[in-house]
Amino acid sequence: MPIKPEVLNIKKAASSRLFLVEELELRFSNGEQRTYERLASRGYGAVMMIAIDSDDNILLVREYAGGIEDYTLSLPKGAVDKGETIYQAADRELKEEIGFGANRIDFLKEMTTAPNYMGHKLKAVIARDLYPCELPGDEPEPLEVVKWPLSDIDNLALNPEFTEGRAIAGLYMAKHFLENQSG
Amino acid sequence: MPIKPEVLNIKKAASSRLFLVEELELRFSNGEQRTYERLASRGYGAVMMIAIDSDDNILLVREYAGGIEDYTLSLPKGAVDKGETIYQAADRELKEEIGFGANRIDFLKEMTTAPNYMGHKLKAVIARDLYPCELPGDEPEPLEVVKWPLSDIDNLALNPEFTEGRAIAGLYMAKHFLENQSG
Repeated sequence: MPIKPEVLNIKKAASSRLFLVEELELRFSNGEQRTYERLASRGYGAVMMIAIDSDDNILLVREYAGGIEDYTLSLPKGAVDKGETIYQAADRELKEEIGFGANRIDFLKEMTTAPNYMGHKLKAVIARDLYPCELPGDEPEPLEVVKWPLSDIDNLALNPEFTEGRAIAGLYMAKHFLENQSG
Repeated sequence: MPIKPEVLNIKKAASSRLFLVEELELRFSNGEQRTYERLASRGYGAVMMIAIDSDDNILLVREYAGGIEDYTLSLPKGAVDKGETIYQAADRELKEEIGFGANRIDFLKEMTTAPNYMGHKLKAVIARDLYPCELPGDEPEPLEVVKWPLSDIDNLALNPEFTEGRAIAGLYMAKHFLENQSG
């Protein structure tokens, strides 16, 4: 592995209610110096759920996404609260977003979002043995739940309404995980 | 499709050299009002290349990622310059990052990064018919190029050094595209 650059300084470049932008002053092992900007990650991480029902459907949510000013189809996900394990967070977020809890949750992968300029990480899990249970969420309107056959994820990945890279990755990794488990 | 919320106001919440944070004031169709924050996307978009050599290896880059303060293995990618098509941008970025141009580039998918709070989009392409050609990039140190067999992407997706969700998605979508083309 290459020698990591020396971090000469980290300072706040900008901040808002939700975001913190940092300036990272680096000296690479060849002597080159650079100042990078990055979005710092706050809080306790986030979790994304590939929830699969007893008919082998994946449970998706259709939600308004402020970043692109449009409704989008994606996997349910949310922030981990203080003191929660990712399994507890996944179970709670499922109850809030799709009205099901999960008796069985398996860890798949910790993903980065855009590691060159963001610290954000997201843990993907598979959730199975679902049971109906609703918890109130903080969404401005109820999310629409959409079922999609696990056997048809190639078409879901190509669907123009399903665009989130981390979610496409989660689908394929879940499929591989389940094939390996049953094979 | 649901009725989109009315955008009541958009204003700058914070900004730095690279980032612009906006506040988005929304009224949902049920009357609920919310103020969301988001990271606006600037520039002309970005492109990510799944470059495949004549031995069916994917060409990866190992690069220092400021967001996570560590080296990471991912797919080559970069910003589209003003006036460039994504095909021109992909070819140029490949020359800068891995020292190859591509005679054949096929569009795969436009992905979002984290659509709930970011406007950023990334177009994934497959690059083939590679030929040696180097262009100087703006990297502080040369990127290490790593070859990985296309037939073994399940293990690459699980590799702890390969974490970027958009890149994992790109691998699987490229594999599906190629299987469909030859099948």
